[in-house]
Amino acid sequence: MTQTYEELKDRLATIHDLHMARAILGWDQHTKMPPGGSEVRAEQLGTLDKFSHELFIDDEIGRLLDELRDYEESAGRDSDEASLIRVARRDYEKAKRVPPELRAEMTRAGANALPAWIEAREKSDFSIFLPYLKTNLELIHRYVDCFDGMSYESEYDVLLDDFDEGLTANEVRTVFDELKRELVPLIVRIGENADRVDDSSLRRSDFPIEKQRAFSLEVLERLGFDHEKWRLDPTVHPFAMSAGIKDIRLTTRYDETDLGVSLFASIHEFGHGFYEAGVDPAYERTPLASVTSMSLHESQSRMWENLVGRALPTWRFFFPKLQAAFPGQFGEVELETFYGAINKVAPSLIRVEADEATYNMHIILRFELEQEMLSGDLSLEDLPEAWNSRMAEYLGVEVPDDTHGVLQDIHWSGGAIGYFPTYSLGNVVSVQLWDKARGELPDLDAQFEQGEFGELSGWLRENLHRHGRKYTSKEMLERITGGGMDPGPYIQYLKSKLGEIYGLPVPAGVPA
Amino acid sequence: MTQTYEELKDRLATIHDLHMARAILGWDQHTKMPPGGSEVRAEQLGTLDKFSHELFIDDEIGRLLDELRDYEESAGRDSDEASLIRVARRDYEKAKRVPPELRAEMTRAGANALPAWIEAREKSDFSIFLPYLKTNLELIHRYVDCFDGMSYESEYDVLLDDFDEGLTANEVRTVFDELKRELVPLIVRIGENADRVDDSSLRRSDFPIEKQRAFSLEVLERLGFDHEKWRLDPTVHPFAMSAGIKDIRLTTRYDETDLGVSLFASIHEFGHGFYEAGVDPAYERTPLASVTSMSLHESQSRMWENLVGRALPTWRFFFPKLQAAFPGQFGEVELETFYGAINKVAPSLIRVEADEATYNMHIILRFELEQEMLSGDLSLEDLPEAWNSRMAEYLGVEVPDDTHGVLQDIHWSGGAIGYFPTYSLGNVVSVQLWDKARGELPDLDAQFEQGEFGELSGWLRENLHRHGRKYTSKEMLERITGGGMDPGPYIQYLKSKLGEIYGLPVPAGVPA
Repeated sequence: MTQTYEELKDRLATIHDLHMARAILGWDQHTKMPPGGSEVRAEQLGTLDKFSHELFIDDEIGRLLDELRDYEESAGRDSDEASLIRVARRDYEKAKRVPPELRAEMTRAGANALPAWIEAREKSDFSIFLPYLKTNLELIHRYVDCFDGMSYESEYDVLLDDFDEGLTANEVRTVFDELKRELVPLIVRIGENADRVDDSSLRRSDFPIEKQRAFSLEVLERLGFDHEKWRLDPTVHPFAMSAGIKDIRLTTRYDETDLGVSLFASIHEFGHGFYEAGVDPAYERTPLASVTSMSLHESQSRMWENLVGRALPTWRFFFPKLQAAFPGQFGEVELETFYGAINKVAPSLIRVEADEATYNMHIILRFELEQEMLSGDLSLEDLPEAWNSRMAEYLGVEVPDDTHGVLQDIHWSGGAIGYFPTYSLGNVVSVQLWDKARGELPDLDAQFEQGEFGELSGWLRENLHRHGRKYTSKEMLERITGGGMDPGPYIQYLKSKLGEIYGLPVPAGVPA
Repeated sequence: MTQTYEELKDRLATIHDLHMARAILGWDQHTKMPPGGSEVRAEQLGTLDKFSHELFIDDEIGRLLDELRDYEESAGRDSDEASLIRVARRDYEKAKRVPPELRAEMTRAGANALPAWIEAREKSDFSIFLPYLKTNLELIHRYVDCFDGMSYESEYDVLLDDFDEGLTANEVRTVFDELKRELVPLIVRIGENADRVDDSSLRRSDFPIEKQRAFSLEVLERLGFDHEKWRLDPTVHPFAMSAGIKDIRLTTRYDETDLGVSLFASIHEFGHGFYEAGVDPAYERTPLASVTSMSLHESQSRMWENLVGRALPTWRFFFPKLQAAFPGQFGEVELETFYGAINKVAPSLIRVEADEATYNMHIILRFELEQEMLSGDLSLEDLPEAWNSRMAEYLGVEVPDDTHGVLQDIHWSGGAIGYFPTYSLGNVVSVQLWDKARGELPDLDAQFEQGEFGELSGWLRENLHRHGRKYTSKEMLERITGGGMDPGPYIQYLKSKLGEIYGLPVPAGVPA
């Protein structure tokens, strides 16, 4: 039986290699490729996806998985062996339903849409992007159709399931309804005290990119960025990817007029990278060498970005270094002013630059629009208008052009629908994990003040990262917190932290 | 029949995609990959090679190629269709003999040897690299054995044939014997007049890398480097590669104490890139979307590096720009001094930094050692000593350590034996093509003085580049020059140019 298992592992290792090759081509496409390369790159990506898909849905893999049922059971659910078989079987059963040609077509369409999205964004002209978005949506419909007869409650659930196993639109809606109910009045109350925070120090015209990069790296190195295994490159829309557990690639975007853009994007992507770098090295080249779900992935990026990266103890350590790096900009600024600035709440246009409170409204808007696009209730021609009117409704901001509206995010160009909700779920989960970690590690604040992040890192590695894809996010959350997803702690955290900064009455239940 | 042809083309296109994916992973490995990634990268490269090899040697491709024999004949030998079939069949018949596992093993071994070579080079310790070189050589023997019973005259010919179809060690030897006979006395005579050239202006300690890069780009852009389609990155051992006809990647190496290193490496690699960028776009994703042979490839890199890049008319244009970029270094230097400096002949340790005359002795040494390694006459343990003693014999230089000796080149780490001769053959061919071009384009010098290189570029594109891999190098040379490989013009060129710089008697047969 071990031989059968090894045979399965060998086949999956080859497929994993092709996935990694694809990841590198994708990274290159977004960071290094000269524009002229985009057309053949679409073909190359499509070919890689088609072949890895074909190899994976080979009947022989199905036969091996069947043969291994007894072995899996005898190994015990928590064993690496059983987990690998379980995860591979689940992927196999889904993949088997999708024709390789459709897989390749989706990839090619996404790659071809990328330069169109970039051009549309530059020219602020949605019509350039529209035909590509139509193609992507058609292909998504064909993809969803592959799962006819399965037990999904809705079309959207098929897509959600790819990013977070078993997650449903109904569950998302329940969480989002509570977020909306609690956060909309909080945002209003904060707006009434808006003058308590001054973020002018962050928004100047004199943040040279090279200096921003150097300072970001200084911060990241303290958190755990290791040049032997990591890179940081500029791109249009920041992302993180790994080409192996010891080959982690972060990307960021620089804005010479706003230090926060690249700094917090870098820390956010560090959170993703640190999760992937922490997977048990024994899982390399297996389906377990990935992460549980995009929600848990985002819980890590949002934790480092917000819970660590926008915390006062953290900046007690880093602020003097920031002042040294940018003496003209921050030499006269007080730490408390800076802390307020990086936590300023104000309705704004761009999701990735949004503060912690309004951020979720950006997500809720996308969650709603995606469902309407998918159901056909909203035609794509009307998407910019729907976007703009909902931005006015939810955040009270007027969208001046599509670049600052419907064209701001890369996701739809790559055909990723159903991804956005994981950001806000990541916020929710991040605080659940955070509360647990702080309960077990009472000295974190004091450590952050000394620039020490190792105890938190170790706790995350031990409890979450090392397991890779072994558990679903529901199982993982249950293992760590003993319960399910709960927006309560996140809402409490926002009320407490932002309430203090904006001088609002402290909510009940928050320790003094 | 067209349908059969299209089916073949489709299959070859996907295989080409996998080759390009492999090329990108290789480029990334040499330019961007964090060191931690090297282990899994070896697996990824091995998997891609194995997989594309398997797809290519599929019996179905053999069947299609057989079926297309009549179609090929009726299309006419020079047609794109017949050429594609002919080239694919030749590749197929060779590939069919090589088991995919061996292919993958060679790739993995090469990828694993790379970090060992880099470390050995840094520490100047051949013993670190030795076990990897042994593995590579064993695999090469197994590879050569695959061609048992074919009409190769020697084991070395099997390897040469991979880089230049039909080239034999005997042909190479004939050319190299003539080079040796003519160049050794030339080098001696130049040595007697060594004090005529002063290259101290090039060798200072103050050439900042960023400025070197900017100036190299200024030169390359004039020659035809286009940021829409090209990149230039630093690496340990310069190379050029393309991931598509419109995605050309050059690499170079910077030395703060020697401007010439990166400048001429950049121009050399530009020559490679410009050849690949000039292939007929209709050949994209076919086996014709490559270049004729490595000898012709090197003819292009050496032509741009030496015949254009070290020519006086070229520097009449660029030298004032160099002075502007480096006023402290070149402000007081005369053009003629600089021209002498970049053409200085002096026996030295490093091939890629060698002058045009001694360069070939570096190659002849490698050509001899490779044959002895392959035949077993030289054991790998004795390689450093053999290297050093032959360097003393051929160039009169003493090798201080392995970094400046046997470890200087990347080729053997990747398992490339039989490649080196193509450099000197490239020198030889470059002047044959050059003489032809100058015969047809009498104003080249005047154009170079104006910074205009378009007429030469156009001529090369029209006569050589656009044909991609359609013709063998013998056919190509015959088409352009009406004859075969002939070292005469190259020797004549060296005697004339270097004779003038060093004040030697002008040889007979050179126009006054």
